[in-house]
Amino acid sequence: MAQKKQILLNAFNMNSVGHINHGLWTHPRDQSHRYKTLDYWTSLAQTLERGLFDGVFLADIIGVYDVYQGSADLTVRESIQLPINDPLLLVSAMAAVTKNLGFGVTVNVNSEAPYLFARRMSTLDHLTDGRIGWNIVTGYLDSAARALGEDAQAEHDSRYDRADEYLEVLYKLWEGSWDDDAILLDKANRMFADPNKVRPMEHDGRYYRSNGYHLSEPSRQRTPVLYQAGTSGRGRQFAARHAECVFITGSDKSSARTAARALRQEAVDAGRRAEDIKILVGVTVVTGATTGEAKDKHAEYLRYANPEAGLAHFSAGTGIDFSKYDLDEEIVYGTSNAIQSQTQLAKQRGWTKRQLLGELAIGGRYPTIVGNGSQVADELASWIEEGEIDGFNLARTVVPESYEDFVEHVVPAVQDRGIYKTTYQEGSLRQKIFRDGDKVPDRHHAASYRAARDR
Amino acid sequence: MAQKKQILLNAFNMNSVGHINHGLWTHPRDQSHRYKTLDYWTSLAQTLERGLFDGVFLADIIGVYDVYQGSADLTVRESIQLPINDPLLLVSAMAAVTKNLGFGVTVNVNSEAPYLFARRMSTLDHLTDGRIGWNIVTGYLDSAARALGEDAQAEHDSRYDRADEYLEVLYKLWEGSWDDDAILLDKANRMFADPNKVRPMEHDGRYYRSNGYHLSEPSRQRTPVLYQAGTSGRGRQFAARHAECVFITGSDKSSARTAARALRQEAVDAGRRAEDIKILVGVTVVTGATTGEAKDKHAEYLRYANPEAGLAHFSAGTGIDFSKYDLDEEIVYGTSNAIQSQTQLAKQRGWTKRQLLGELAIGGRYPTIVGNGSQVADELASWIEEGEIDGFNLARTVVPESYEDFVEHVVPAVQDRGIYKTTYQEGSLRQKIFRDGDKVPDRHHAASYRAARDR
Repeated sequence: MAQKKQILLNAFNMNSVGHINHGLWTHPRDQSHRYKTLDYWTSLAQTLERGLFDGVFLADIIGVYDVYQGSADLTVRESIQLPINDPLLLVSAMAAVTKNLGFGVTVNVNSEAPYLFARRMSTLDHLTDGRIGWNIVTGYLDSAARALGEDAQAEHDSRYDRADEYLEVLYKLWEGSWDDDAILLDKANRMFADPNKVRPMEHDGRYYRSNGYHLSEPSRQRTPVLYQAGTSGRGRQFAARHAECVFITGSDKSSARTAARALRQEAVDAGRRAEDIKILVGVTVVTGATTGEAKDKHAEYLRYANPEAGLAHFSAGTGIDFSKYDLDEEIVYGTSNAIQSQTQLAKQRGWTKRQLLGELAIGGRYPTIVGNGSQVADELASWIEEGEIDGFNLARTVVPESYEDFVEHVVPAVQDRGIYKTTYQEGSLRQKIFRDGDKVPDRHHAASYRAARDR
Repeated sequence: MAQKKQILLNAFNMNSVGHINHGLWTHPRDQSHRYKTLDYWTSLAQTLERGLFDGVFLADIIGVYDVYQGSADLTVRESIQLPINDPLLLVSAMAAVTKNLGFGVTVNVNSEAPYLFARRMSTLDHLTDGRIGWNIVTGYLDSAARALGEDAQAEHDSRYDRADEYLEVLYKLWEGSWDDDAILLDKANRMFADPNKVRPMEHDGRYYRSNGYHLSEPSRQRTPVLYQAGTSGRGRQFAARHAECVFITGSDKSSARTAARALRQEAVDAGRRAEDIKILVGVTVVTGATTGEAKDKHAEYLRYANPEAGLAHFSAGTGIDFSKYDLDEEIVYGTSNAIQSQTQLAKQRGWTKRQLLGELAIGGRYPTIVGNGSQVADELASWIEEGEIDGFNLARTVVPESYEDFVEHVVPAVQDRGIYKTTYQEGSLRQKIFRDGDKVPDRHHAASYRAARDR
């Protein structure tokens, strides 16, 4: 019998107190305020590796949520992704205490020159021996643009044009500047590297100019595993060309399936294979030894969660100040210049604030699965099958217990069903995910930037 | 009896194969090619902490050395700071295996927007609990400017004007955006932070515009310990205002003393105290159990070192292609638009290439001290006294043995003389260095950006 489809699993996190499920920092057992300390992260990494998670996926945001009530006050009070520290700087400490866990880090393409960012990712790929992934984001907050010296963010589609070119520069550096066999480490002949196998890349484009040798020698994966979260038309086109793992927020299995099929079709149209894109859905899981224990825990969490803080987060995403609406007033909105693309909810029309707050009961907008390990495993299996997806980004609730509960109760149950690994696959993050090579496959756009001899 | 002046000691290193003493990567015992691996760095950090080093000081360079012979060929062959990986990404792994070691990381002010860089350093200050320092550099390579999309580097003095403004933005974020008592972590009253004690900073200057809340809550030191390496007129003025530790390259004690006095005077003129600036000299040490062992080791090292590679490095620094000169031709040069400020050698006139190569016998241009522990200790003590400096940046030769030799032979000898600590001082890096508070003192320029209530 063929092996069943294996669930891909990332722990979704952020270098911050509040992330997705807002308000839970007030829970007496929650330790998320310890995000500033190293052992918070090294312990987490060890827990995740014990649970055979494929990776920890670190979100990031530049800017603050100041749309709701026209201020950042609630954001400050409830720590709604503020303060928020840099995600990349956590990786080497977590990598040092693990062997197999992957690291998906979010970096906005507007953050820095591609030449320097290319080195940052190569450095992490070296230090983790090929366990690094990059979640490509283009940003959506005006507050971020102002912090970086602009008046407002660029228009949605042009952000993707710019991101396309950013990736082009990166591919030239990651794939083309050093040949696979450039490093000789020949002490006797004093040849560390062969000058004939190293070359400066040149780029003179619409948004970027850069000319120089990639500063890093080739790392195990060269191009990190590429993650993306856009499901808008232009975002999907970008994903079809670049992304290897796409993170979608599906409110139900049917909408996930629709999004998944559209993405895979677009990838095929771009010369790739349907299975070249792994699709992950964000979920919240509350579990325990028994159904009753899980339900009690969920009820307990709800007492500390803050749906209004979730609404403030959602306000920033949609650009709509929900504080201005009455509870039962119908809120009609369609495409905005904000993250309409990032959420299924934003595609809905005619919600009331009361309905939204109900959806945000645990403080965040992801589907919430409550049950014992077996029940959660069944529901995850159903998402994989009916939603035609590949895995999950598991949002945290009370830290670290929500991860520990998952490892204790759900992991054995999905293993029993044959839909989750019982040991890590050898190799780089890309090998683990795709059961193929360390590098992007030849049909990926990045491969076209390889030096001829490496292709 | 008053305590004798205590030597400050940094291990000088770089996330690369070749650093200062070029060619030694070919030594059979040298492990510098393992710079890509985490355990190379965590082992190093542990060795340094065993030797009570104040810090590891990580240099960095953007761009490649392509002046010598008009190409980067020798740079590639001898790995002259190419490849070169990102230094910041090493810190969390090293911090996780140490308790007291400081981390001085080099970042060019042209690298990224101050808003984002401020967060990077705050993140590291949090993760290390106040053990982070920043070596401020303005860059000197045209190849770096081209890589970042410019035609050539900016003129020397204007680079410092721009750096001054960059620091101003950083101070506003680090010192002014969050009050000391802004974080409440009050779970019962749902007040993570007090909105009245957090404010966006505003900056609209000549080089930078930025408007926003600092993304990080206050870290132990807020402003990292500030290092700098400029000793030109404009660079010294910059140092007098900002730097807390200044790294100078002194070819002899007398020139070090001249530079040290000028720096301290300029600091006093800027309203600071002479002792507010700690001055470090770069040195290479080859030591062993006996004088003979040290001399033998030195002779052995010389067989693997490559003075020509050192010359290629120096060519990039001065902008002069030394390959074009005959061995005994007098090379006259004065101020150039390159790093004239970074080296005493560049202020010399009338050197021959033969003389330069002699100076570069061990592949680098720092004073080289060869002897048993006691002899090295005497020489270091003499540098401190006659040079009127505070400590050293210890360049590496063969890695890791040069650090291990130093810890084994020199550390006990300087401890015996009462000029080196026998245990770490408690506290942050700034406390350890200055025996004062975690934060910059009130007389430092950064302090003027503090919110009134924190001053």
